[in-house]
Amino acid sequence: MKKRILIVGGVAGGASAAARLRRLDAGAEIVMLERGPFVSFANCGLPYHVSDVIADEASLTVASPQLFRERHGIEVRTGHEVVSIDAGAKTVRVRVLASGEEVEERYDALVLSPGASPVRPPLPGIDLPGILTLRNIPDVRKIREWIRERGVKRAIVAGAGFIGLEMVENLHAMGIEVTVLEMLPQVMPPLDAEMAWWVAEHLRAKGVTLALGDGVAEFEATESGGLAVRTAGGVRHEGDMVILSIGVRPETGLAKAAGLELGPRGGIRVDDRMRTSDASIWAVGDAVEVVDRVSGQPALIPLAGPANRQARIAAASICGHEARFSGVQGTAICGVLGLTVAATGASEKALERAGEKDYEKVYLHPANHATYYPGASSMHLKVVYRKTDGRLLGAQAVGGEGVDKRMDVLAVFLQMGATVHDLAEAELCYAPQYGSAKDPVNIAGMAAVNALEGLSPLTHWNSVRDGALLVDVREVDEFEEGHAEGAMNLPLSGLRDRWRELPAGRELHVYCGVGLRAHNAVRFLRQQGYAAWNLSGGWKSYAAAKATGKG
Amino acid sequence: MKKRILIVGGVAGGASAAARLRRLDAGAEIVMLERGPFVSFANCGLPYHVSDVIADEASLTVASPQLFRERHGIEVRTGHEVVSIDAGAKTVRVRVLASGEEVEERYDALVLSPGASPVRPPLPGIDLPGILTLRNIPDVRKIREWIRERGVKRAIVAGAGFIGLEMVENLHAMGIEVTVLEMLPQVMPPLDAEMAWWVAEHLRAKGVTLALGDGVAEFEATESGGLAVRTAGGVRHEGDMVILSIGVRPETGLAKAAGLELGPRGGIRVDDRMRTSDASIWAVGDAVEVVDRVSGQPALIPLAGPANRQARIAAASICGHEARFSGVQGTAICGVLGLTVAATGASEKALERAGEKDYEKVYLHPANHATYYPGASSMHLKVVYRKTDGRLLGAQAVGGEGVDKRMDVLAVFLQMGATVHDLAEAELCYAPQYGSAKDPVNIAGMAAVNALEGLSPLTHWNSVRDGALLVDVREVDEFEEGHAEGAMNLPLSGLRDRWRELPAGRELHVYCGVGLRAHNAVRFLRQQGYAAWNLSGGWKSYAAAKATGKG
Repeated sequence: MKKRILIVGGVAGGASAAARLRRLDAGAEIVMLERGPFVSFANCGLPYHVSDVIADEASLTVASPQLFRERHGIEVRTGHEVVSIDAGAKTVRVRVLASGEEVEERYDALVLSPGASPVRPPLPGIDLPGILTLRNIPDVRKIREWIRERGVKRAIVAGAGFIGLEMVENLHAMGIEVTVLEMLPQVMPPLDAEMAWWVAEHLRAKGVTLALGDGVAEFEATESGGLAVRTAGGVRHEGDMVILSIGVRPETGLAKAAGLELGPRGGIRVDDRMRTSDASIWAVGDAVEVVDRVSGQPALIPLAGPANRQARIAAASICGHEARFSGVQGTAICGVLGLTVAATGASEKALERAGEKDYEKVYLHPANHATYYPGASSMHLKVVYRKTDGRLLGAQAVGGEGVDKRMDVLAVFLQMGATVHDLAEAELCYAPQYGSAKDPVNIAGMAAVNALEGLSPLTHWNSVRDGALLVDVREVDEFEEGHAEGAMNLPLSGLRDRWRELPAGRELHVYCGVGLRAHNAVRFLRQQGYAAWNLSGGWKSYAAAKATGKG
Repeated sequence: MKKRILIVGGVAGGASAAARLRRLDAGAEIVMLERGPFVSFANCGLPYHVSDVIADEASLTVASPQLFRERHGIEVRTGHEVVSIDAGAKTVRVRVLASGEEVEERYDALVLSPGASPVRPPLPGIDLPGILTLRNIPDVRKIREWIRERGVKRAIVAGAGFIGLEMVENLHAMGIEVTVLEMLPQVMPPLDAEMAWWVAEHLRAKGVTLALGDGVAEFEATESGGLAVRTAGGVRHEGDMVILSIGVRPETGLAKAAGLELGPRGGIRVDDRMRTSDASIWAVGDAVEVVDRVSGQPALIPLAGPANRQARIAAASICGHEARFSGVQGTAICGVLGLTVAATGASEKALERAGEKDYEKVYLHPANHATYYPGASSMHLKVVYRKTDGRLLGAQAVGGEGVDKRMDVLAVFLQMGATVHDLAEAELCYAPQYGSAKDPVNIAGMAAVNALEGLSPLTHWNSVRDGALLVDVREVDEFEEGHAEGAMNLPLSGLRDRWRELPAGRELHVYCGVGLRAHNAVRFLRQQGYAAWNLSGGWKSYAAAKATGKG
């Protein structure tokens, strides 16, 4: 009898698994069962179809059932929901949604790729029409129809994570007035607050209303036929539709009912071959728990790239090939009204939550390419590394062009277990329209190495100690435009003559615009016997942090 | 007595060394001696000032002598040429160019950063006016003046390396008709010929005349006041000016006369602290020999990024700090009329020259981002790795947006000693406008891993063996538009039904458009007992290689 492999779920993980299974086993019978009407569609493109940036719905489909059949000999059954698994008998029960009929299918190997579903908290009014989520093609059709039929002018986006802000991007592009509600006091929860601040400022400048630090409490229909959202803080926001993007939850119902083990985060537990607690069942994608590459802890990190790689490994494992999944570092990116926001690895708050103390961070505001070449724009970059050995732990960036490149470079360094010394040595592409002789990644590394070696120790807005003096080494005109409270102005250009004006015996926390002049000043002052620190990221980072209320 | 540090040469290496020396030693006397009228200018921006893309000459200057003095207490003396070094006495002889006067200066530490000068071969007519090179600000002034005063309409660029093609970019932007002469049979000598072919095709499509595989033999003045270049092959090219960009030579005269050791490539020999054979003399930048990170051999690789890092290390060494230079991998990039060309590590021809046999390569033509998002464009990518263990050796890419990003990612992998397995696992930024769930770098890694593991071994246009059958698995209409000579067409979509039509016992070299369908076909055919290989990069790479005459 032919080996029979069933795949539950036909999107990223399921479709990739099917294709590779076929390549590794030309003879197996491979059947992909998908509850929805579509397989192998591009989840990550859905928000852009709302606004017609991706105008043609068909272009969201990567591979059709026909292509699976003709090219790969894979059978695809859409509208087929797997309702239970009998792991002992190695069968699944399938409901054919069109007829309601149920059939039993046997398997030798079963791959679960059920994904994650948008969280819909059981709040009053949650089922009112016009409160929409976005996960698949029927969802995007519903949103498009709602916008068109209702002539939506104002929308409320609840949840300011990646999907929420991608919806903001697309609704805003359609001329819809957008209000963003977020329970946390910041947008982009994966980022640290002082980095997310740049995103919030950009959104506000583009006319998006932000209501942060206040959760959604209930929904109501308004008299004019719209919707109102009342927050926990008692504020009422009105709009013609609500996009719920407050997170996703792994679809584990089927796995749980079958007796498969779940992990501590509530996802399906798998080993590094993507095998579940049942030896004939593998699971991949948003529903599984992965190992966080930085913390080594189990985590739920729903991302398309890892889902694809997990699928390859599950296929290899099923066919007896050696391959292991090495974990997820959470590299993510989002375009927000011309701004790019990206991150990889651990945020500072994740380290704090884990009780980690052995870390340092560096802030920069470098240009994306040589400033002498026209069109350079600056980005905001935060790099977090282990204080004892300089190992890279994570990075976040906000800016324009070149943010994706630096995040990819940092993601690779993190993957390879690099230290800040490696960042300093990176030999990256340099021509003036692409980068700089010292790339932002080099500068981050050099600043961190200087701190590690004690040459120019770093300090931050939230670690200026009592009794310490803030020294602003910018020129007088810069100082007068805005400076830290209590700071003394002593421009770097006069420092070699005037340093004796600085009080002896006091700790000096030195800052400039972004960090370079302060670095020079700290080096000078340390050689004159002062205990001097460089306030990383300078006035720019200081002001941003103060604005978040964290300063 | 104060420690006295002299620096010879005030551009990238010299200026960086001076600034860091000041940070590490606040008390030293630091004097920078520069023969030319400018210090700390942006070499790499010079071609763009020719065309006014960088309109303001002053913007090419990173730091002025005044800034060095006021901010850093560094003395800068322009127009001061060091004419000899007495290493025993620790003095240099300096000619003040304005007066002709010579003075002696003592040093405790000496840093040489003389750079490299454009090669001007002693050919007949080489000194005719209008045969210009580009190294510094006076050079760019001369070129600008010549173009303006002579009303240049046609220019000849001799040498199709990075600087040559940057000059093409800028001359073309000014509406000047450009002919490029190159002794080698390809443009962009650091690239392999079949990758450079894409650049040549692009240049031709933009109206640039290429004369490859024929060296310059002599220059003449024409009757109409222009210039003519006669090649070794006897072809005559006319133009209103000639830009000579056939390479640079390290400026080692001073070092050699002082008795400093040179390396096998003719550059100043330094250790990994950038110290020369004299314990009080360091050298950095284009004049020194570095260790090639891939081959481990001495090499001359004149690049601004490494020069800056070498300067930091020389400064650290002079001040007693620990730091070592780990070598150069030759990461380079160039914009050519809307195309980006980039490379890192070893080219295939460099490996061949070194007698290296243990390598394999993979070609790809991936899109820069998800194709379902508008504006995706495809690039050409070649990745070279060690066949036995998969270690990354080098990469080359030609294309539009996103080429610089992939090359930086690959450069970091190479720096970190990564294997193709690491490339396959890379977790890079994915949103549809930035990348793909499987990034080009992932795909390169996956293809290489599949080959390494014997799942889908690779073959190439130049390794199709006698008696082997080329099998084209594209659809019939694609095949009919163009295909390899002698190829049999058997579309992947029909392969599972028709594979028995393939002759038993013959090696099959399978190709499709770019490699994916062929991969599926190879996997299928191997499981039916065929010796099948995937022709890497498919018809695109095959056709490009054939066009270079290498097929």
